[in-house]
Amino acid sequence: MSVLGATGSIGTQTLDIVRRLPERFRVVAVSANRDVRTVVSQAREFRPQLVALADEAAAAACRQELAGTGIQVLAGEEGLVAVATMPEADVLVGAVVGMAGLVPILAGAKAGKVIALANKESLVVGGQLLMDTACANGAVILPVDSEHSAILQCLAGENRPYLRRLILTASGGPFWGKRRSQLRGVTRREALRHPRWQMGAKISVDSATMMNKGLEVLEAHWLFGAALDAIDVVVHPQSIVHSLVEFQDGSIVAQLGPTDMRHPILYALTYPERVAAGLPGLDLLQVGQLQFMAPDDETFPCLTLAREAGRRGGTAPAALNAANEVAVAAFLQDRIEFLAIPEIVAQVLERHNERPADDLPAVLAADQEGRRLAQQLIDHWEGGAS
Amino acid sequence: MSVLGATGSIGTQTLDIVRRLPERFRVVAVSANRDVRTVVSQAREFRPQLVALADEAAAAACRQELAGTGIQVLAGEEGLVAVATMPEADVLVGAVVGMAGLVPILAGAKAGKVIALANKESLVVGGQLLMDTACANGAVILPVDSEHSAILQCLAGENRPYLRRLILTASGGPFWGKRRSQLRGVTRREALRHPRWQMGAKISVDSATMMNKGLEVLEAHWLFGAALDAIDVVVHPQSIVHSLVEFQDGSIVAQLGPTDMRHPILYALTYPERVAAGLPGLDLLQVGQLQFMAPDDETFPCLTLAREAGRRGGTAPAALNAANEVAVAAFLQDRIEFLAIPEIVAQVLERHNERPADDLPAVLAADQEGRRLAQQLIDHWEGGAS
Repeated sequence: MSVLGATGSIGTQTLDIVRRLPERFRVVAVSANRDVRTVVSQAREFRPQLVALADEAAAAACRQELAGTGIQVLAGEEGLVAVATMPEADVLVGAVVGMAGLVPILAGAKAGKVIALANKESLVVGGQLLMDTACANGAVILPVDSEHSAILQCLAGENRPYLRRLILTASGGPFWGKRRSQLRGVTRREALRHPRWQMGAKISVDSATMMNKGLEVLEAHWLFGAALDAIDVVVHPQSIVHSLVEFQDGSIVAQLGPTDMRHPILYALTYPERVAAGLPGLDLLQVGQLQFMAPDDETFPCLTLAREAGRRGGTAPAALNAANEVAVAAFLQDRIEFLAIPEIVAQVLERHNERPADDLPAVLAADQEGRRLAQQLIDHWEGGAS
Repeated sequence: MSVLGATGSIGTQTLDIVRRLPERFRVVAVSANRDVRTVVSQAREFRPQLVALADEAAAAACRQELAGTGIQVLAGEEGLVAVATMPEADVLVGAVVGMAGLVPILAGAKAGKVIALANKESLVVGGQLLMDTACANGAVILPVDSEHSAILQCLAGENRPYLRRLILTASGGPFWGKRRSQLRGVTRREALRHPRWQMGAKISVDSATMMNKGLEVLEAHWLFGAALDAIDVVVHPQSIVHSLVEFQDGSIVAQLGPTDMRHPILYALTYPERVAAGLPGLDLLQVGQLQFMAPDDETFPCLTLAREAGRRGGTAPAALNAANEVAVAAFLQDRIEFLAIPEIVAQVLERHNERPADDLPAVLAADQEGRRLAQQLIDHWEGGAS
């Protein structure tokens, strides 16, 4: 396998699965953004043929560290694409965060890989493009999200026409139960303190704003071919039921498990098999009770914004995602407050004129435009706040 | 289809499904125990070719009522067997309650029918025999129990070697949460007042003693080929999660639905398809919360007794079931108190010497012996109590 984004949360957990099933998997290529120390240690352990770093300076440092090992080190987007299209790999794990994943993952789809996809942005932004490319080149896209993995498991052995509704569960994030007025001035630290999942910073903030669930609705739309109106969201604070499917006979099938991303990673890597890898299971008696509640769209408007972008279609989700990436980064740098994130996204979406998103230049242009506009709004925000 | 036990709870709900899908199903034969009025009205509505009543006098009355309709009326076990083996029927619904179902259902299996099986006793008592007969004659046995239907749904598209554990849910019945001392003197009416399910009297009492779950463990063992130790029971008072399956990768899949037996009936009748029949679905937001608790084996020993019978194997489950049927009937006639039911079952099981259960005479002999002994214990009980 090749792993795009090997040093992040999903990447390191993927390598833990490889460690548990050494007879089944071999890592032939890994990429990272700029974390030289981690990727070098991974390279020493897993002996891939190729390491790529998005950052040029980091690639140079890595090349020095790995001198004499015979491991090739590449840099930049070109390097990531080389990892994604590595001929020796059957499986590509797409664990890069954000829009940066789109180009290499598209390249993997063109190369006909089985793609274990954790990068939801590539589907949100380039869903049409990615699904068409996969379809035309015999690539298979398997979700690494716990929610979409749950849905894939619930759909096993069923026919798509039987499907009535997908029900994505949302933990609600660290601020669930709070009113809008209580979210004024919440800190980065509070936003990153997710009650159930240990995740990277970007996705933790997305979870706090509910944008994560909005992106997942769009992702589910592309992965399972479900209409947006047939994808519901329920808040389930325990994060034990990872998602559910309702069939046309009125029956619901759900997948449950511990809050451990290694489970959906393992499922994607071994699908349609189920392989014992010694992961901790779920003790229902310890779980005690499970709750389901309606989302609070007034306090957390990002879910509604994402649905609106999905309904408008074309490049609208790319603009939404770009604005969100920029706004979340600004929040993580303490440049804007938490409540500004949905406002910036809403304004960018409002001003965006969507166009068809069936080629890469159109998608990239919408992304750039969304980023530029979001940046302007943030600069203005800072100006106003200071 | 043919329906054995058409006038009972499962039988009438089966006919409701037929009413909803008239283009899909036609009823060619029905049986009842002695409820002439209901079966005559069903015969007038569904126009089967054959009606059978277990009771001879009831059959005579029914024959008079249906004179001139061209519908044949038969009596006794012979009549039930004729219904079960009706050449025009592809599907046999086995909705007779208790041991009385075994002989006709075995006949249906020999005739190679698809059997939608609500009669759990035939599997508990004659599991080996019924599965072997089905296998040898191309019959298929599909569960109509909500729990086993849930497991069948969770196993769709999976391979049996992936299975680690079946988890049957139990509502806990009307007395869940009570201690043994609080169960002294509970009335028939209290025992029949099930908090979640509308069911017949026998199964309602079985649910109150937890024997129903014990029988279901044995049933699951035969239906899914799972070891007894790989079948767990959790108490789930809301009866929304109908059962769960744990796979060897640590993932759990569950089936959820309203407490409406028409759902598992519909699934068995249309398996492996899923057909819309306008049944009410489940609103997760109305459900609110789901709880899971360990069974209370001290207050409700029947589950442990059933497991013991299963471990001993052979005719032991037949003796257990016979004792339970007799004890429940005596409780329903106010002849013994509620707490005497598990005591009588325990004593019969203790005195039973199990033999192989691979032919019908051995099973029937164990059943008769269990009934006789249970009856003696009840007579003794009454003598002592008066």
